[in-house]
Amino acid sequence: MSMPLPTYDDVLAAAARIAPHAHATPVLRSRALDALAGCELHFKAEPLQRTGAFKFRGACNAVWALDEATAARGVVTHSSGNHGAALALAARTRGIPCHVVVPEGANAAKRANIARQGATLHTCAATIAAREATAARVQADTGARLIHPYTDPHVIAGQGTAALELINAEGPLDVLVAPVGGGGLLSGTALAVAATASGCRVMGAEPAGAADAAESLAAGELRVDFIPDTLCDGLRGTLGAPNFALLRAHRVEVVTVPDAETLVAMRLLWECLKLLVEPSSAIALAAILRQRERLAGQRVGVILSGGNVDLDALPWKAAA
Amino acid sequence: MSMPLPTYDDVLAAAARIAPHAHATPVLRSRALDALAGCELHFKAEPLQRTGAFKFRGACNAVWALDEATAARGVVTHSSGNHGAALALAARTRGIPCHVVVPEGANAAKRANIARQGATLHTCAATIAAREATAARVQADTGARLIHPYTDPHVIAGQGTAALELINAEGPLDVLVAPVGGGGLLSGTALAVAATASGCRVMGAEPAGAADAAESLAAGELRVDFIPDTLCDGLRGTLGAPNFALLRAHRVEVVTVPDAETLVAMRLLWECLKLLVEPSSAIALAAILRQRERLAGQRVGVILSGGNVDLDALPWKAAA
Repeated sequence: MSMPLPTYDDVLAAAARIAPHAHATPVLRSRALDALAGCELHFKAEPLQRTGAFKFRGACNAVWALDEATAARGVVTHSSGNHGAALALAARTRGIPCHVVVPEGANAAKRANIARQGATLHTCAATIAAREATAARVQADTGARLIHPYTDPHVIAGQGTAALELINAEGPLDVLVAPVGGGGLLSGTALAVAATASGCRVMGAEPAGAADAAESLAAGELRVDFIPDTLCDGLRGTLGAPNFALLRAHRVEVVTVPDAETLVAMRLLWECLKLLVEPSSAIALAAILRQRERLAGQRVGVILSGGNVDLDALPWKAAA
Repeated sequence: MSMPLPTYDDVLAAAARIAPHAHATPVLRSRALDALAGCELHFKAEPLQRTGAFKFRGACNAVWALDEATAARGVVTHSSGNHGAALALAARTRGIPCHVVVPEGANAAKRANIARQGATLHTCAATIAAREATAARVQADTGARLIHPYTDPHVIAGQGTAALELINAEGPLDVLVAPVGGGGLLSGTALAVAATASGCRVMGAEPAGAADAAESLAAGELRVDFIPDTLCDGLRGTLGAPNFALLRAHRVEVVTVPDAETLVAMRLLWECLKLLVEPSSAIALAAILRQRERLAGQRVGVILSGGNVDLDALPWKAAA
């Protein structure tokens, strides 16, 4: 937490560092969704990123920023899934060991995704304390470097590259919307937008059942003492301190969304974009649909963050 | 049926004609699927085409090839869904009327897709005779031009543009695989490949329960007297005469695939590509997995043809 906050230059450095390894994902459009939302939507399709989520950007940046000696001892993280898989693949691109601490009951598709990348899995109880203790033990045992899923400055800078590519591809936007859990993506997005897109607002989309970012920004101080209650399994983490500082500094607004609306948005995205989008991503469209009047006629960028859905259940039926 | 067969020049003309209206869809890769198949797979993502399927290419080419006076009277077709939606949108891009004859019991997502494009729907019994009679009546009543879903030479040429783009983007391929129902896509693909990619074989993937193309090619004559029994609702039509002629002329091979293997392939595509692919498209990957030994180490192009899945049921559960 005492690390310096990343800057726009770090986002640019990240873009260069990850270019040989990450995909420049396409931007998708849908006239049907534009008509429904009453604005012009530009979707950055991060489910098409390696490992199925934007998380590879930050993990890859963090892994390739390590010096040789540190890298050789490997990396470790605790993650509900997408960051774990992303770090595992990033480590593999550099040929170094990776350990991932996964809570019991984690989404099966995401566990499989991590294992497929060749990481060593360490299962622990589903509390933040248990995750952190297990990660600390692995660090002590192996000398691996902890790469935090969203407070690590290289991770934040790496996540900002998705917004950078979106703005470079589509030109000026009035608003850019991204989901917020720990805040790695949203704070990285704010960094990228502040320097490249003057006049573009950044908006976070957060589950009503895990609204710590909205509450923290309203209170002017970090408020993370809550029990998440949301289907958006990628957004259950608590907002990080550096992420909070960046969101405040860039005056990012956060909109809260009930899960029921997120599921409606998810089905719309599947139908209209033909893209598998997980609830933690679809929430961004739900937030836009909640803000229809304010956004009318505007050019709206959306970071569709990931597509690691558990295909054994239809997500919109899981809520019933 | 007395129309001349389209040529490679017609594919080139189609590419220019549809360029202002159709998407140049991305090519997707998956290391996980490459490892599974033992070859290098290059997926042309036509679910991201307008109306969710490659069909828009052929329909758009046919609509924009009409002279002004003919176009003004509108177009009509009978279609299990994707061609109907494609023609409806193509007609809308030119501002002309469109009538679509849809059999009772057609996939709900596809019906909705057609209606959304502003076409007039005419429901009829689910037989080929009833479809043709209803289309003939609409033609007589309105003067609309019939655009056949797969025998129309402009439709065939238009469908060939997907392969053209794939080869231009990815370079030489050893094999190109596409599904075959009526044969519009596969024969158009054969035209594109023959002129641009010497040494590239073209392979069709056909449901075992609607194997008229495989049987016709084996017999050396068109054999279309069968009752389709397959979940691949886009591939239930019978091979067209010009399509058969083109497949023979270009020595296209057709592999038949049981539905159970197509459903496994569909789930793999959803998981690994994050793309909603319908059974009629996933069959191409299933055909590749059946040919693992022959294709080992080769560069394989795949036309993933469409993504209009009925989301009220998980397709791999529909088989149970």
